[in-house]
Amino acid sequence: MNSQQLFDNIRKKGSFLCVGLDTDMKKIPKFLLETKNPMFEFNKAIIDKTAKYTVAYKPNLAFYESEGLEGWRSLEMTVNYIRENYPDIFLIADAKRGDIGNTSLMYARAFFEKMTFDSVTVAPYMGEDSVMPFLTYEGKWVVLLALTSNIGASDFQYITDNSTGERLFEKVIRTSSNWGNQENMMFVVGATKAEELTEIRRLVPHHFLLVPGVGAQGGSLQEVAKCGLNKQCGLLVNSSRAIIYASDGQDFAEKAGQSAKATRNEMAKLLKIKRLLS
Amino acid sequence: MNSQQLFDNIRKKGSFLCVGLDTDMKKIPKFLLETKNPMFEFNKAIIDKTAKYTVAYKPNLAFYESEGLEGWRSLEMTVNYIRENYPDIFLIADAKRGDIGNTSLMYARAFFEKMTFDSVTVAPYMGEDSVMPFLTYEGKWVVLLALTSNIGASDFQYITDNSTGERLFEKVIRTSSNWGNQENMMFVVGATKAEELTEIRRLVPHHFLLVPGVGAQGGSLQEVAKCGLNKQCGLLVNSSRAIIYASDGQDFAEKAGQSAKATRNEMAKLLKIKRLLS
Repeated sequence: MNSQQLFDNIRKKGSFLCVGLDTDMKKIPKFLLETKNPMFEFNKAIIDKTAKYTVAYKPNLAFYESEGLEGWRSLEMTVNYIRENYPDIFLIADAKRGDIGNTSLMYARAFFEKMTFDSVTVAPYMGEDSVMPFLTYEGKWVVLLALTSNIGASDFQYITDNSTGERLFEKVIRTSSNWGNQENMMFVVGATKAEELTEIRRLVPHHFLLVPGVGAQGGSLQEVAKCGLNKQCGLLVNSSRAIIYASDGQDFAEKAGQSAKATRNEMAKLLKIKRLLS
Repeated sequence: MNSQQLFDNIRKKGSFLCVGLDTDMKKIPKFLLETKNPMFEFNKAIIDKTAKYTVAYKPNLAFYESEGLEGWRSLEMTVNYIRENYPDIFLIADAKRGDIGNTSLMYARAFFEKMTFDSVTVAPYMGEDSVMPFLTYEGKWVVLLALTSNIGASDFQYITDNSTGERLFEKVIRTSSNWGNQENMMFVVGATKAEELTEIRRLVPHHFLLVPGVGAQGGSLQEVAKCGLNKQCGLLVNSSRAIIYASDGQDFAEKAGQSAKATRNEMAKLLKIKRLLS
């Protein structure tokens, strides 16, 4: 998928919502545990009720790996289900991978060939050759960690580089934006930092940004839109727990759909204010 | 496993070798492809011929993930095989994980509960709360990326922090050494940088260091031992391709064993020089 197709979907749905599929066996409704593939059954129901309001899904790999072989199978089934039923969805493997070149190439195979994700989140610590293998796939994307929304972000991401005066997250963005381009790279920018979002938008005016941390992690959608929207929207805002765990009863999917719809409606308003939607 | 038990195994075997199981379907002997679980059959044969000379195995997750469900199954079978047949082995999941707290907890479950690894490699970019969940498991270890052996290491790991004068990899080591201790944290230090190894040894005199990059990646074992050995050995030196792909014929396991034995013999000499072995 290219950025124009993604933007077309955003306009079609009036939404730049990404739903995070952090599917936790300990949080899904109890009655699903009696089915053969509880994680998949949960995802399928959530997807069917939210797909109208979302342009992207982001399975969080850790949750599937924690269930071993069964988890990995549920992940593959989820990816296939989305591909077959909602072909316009942008699919993000939230995997935070990154290793030496020949190993990153194997991760790229895992997510882009063995499965059919459009993108994978990558950690920048190991530098250029740990990221490049993901960029060799036409139409696929790297979503590179820049500024994260957790407390630990302050441990290293704000270090100021002696020689350039940049903070680490700025250096990561400026340096890596030369590795790829606005058609194959996005950046993760924590939503709790609206001020930094403005500065990042200055560094990469045309790139898409993936913004986690709206909802359960506490960011404000209005702030994010104000600082982050560009001419192609340029934002995917993720919400996980606030949508998928809106209820733990029989109505869990229904409630997830209502929560996604409410977020979508707010997003449509923000897109209209920026004249990206008529 | 605690550091004393690991050191006991090192002395017993006269070796601080870690064999990297970077098992690549495109590189394993062709005749294995006709078996039901080629990756596992390859690993099993390699393990049986090398276990005498090695104290640790390090499956590289990317290689298993790139084969999807079958790969994940082969990984689980490999871990179980080692546990059942070679209980004194230290098992490292080379996974380079790291995410916000609740997600890192899921990765910890995947590697420490669902599977029975002793340790997992973790990337430091997201800071303390991305690492802590792994440290809550008694007897388990985090192997944190500090200075890697690839070219891209120079992109960010050498940034000098304006306020402390430390380079990023030094800051990562100093800061994170307060999160855990020498009984639950090791650091990855690229073997191509003997000079930096000396400086790192000064920062963490008592911790174990995992040193990749000896062999195919070009580091010198003598240099590493000279700069890195401490009173408990304090080193695990990894070799992957030079051992497991020593031959691609019927004799692949035999040749891997010979390669591991040669490395072990060199290590035993180095341990004797440091009087860690009589």
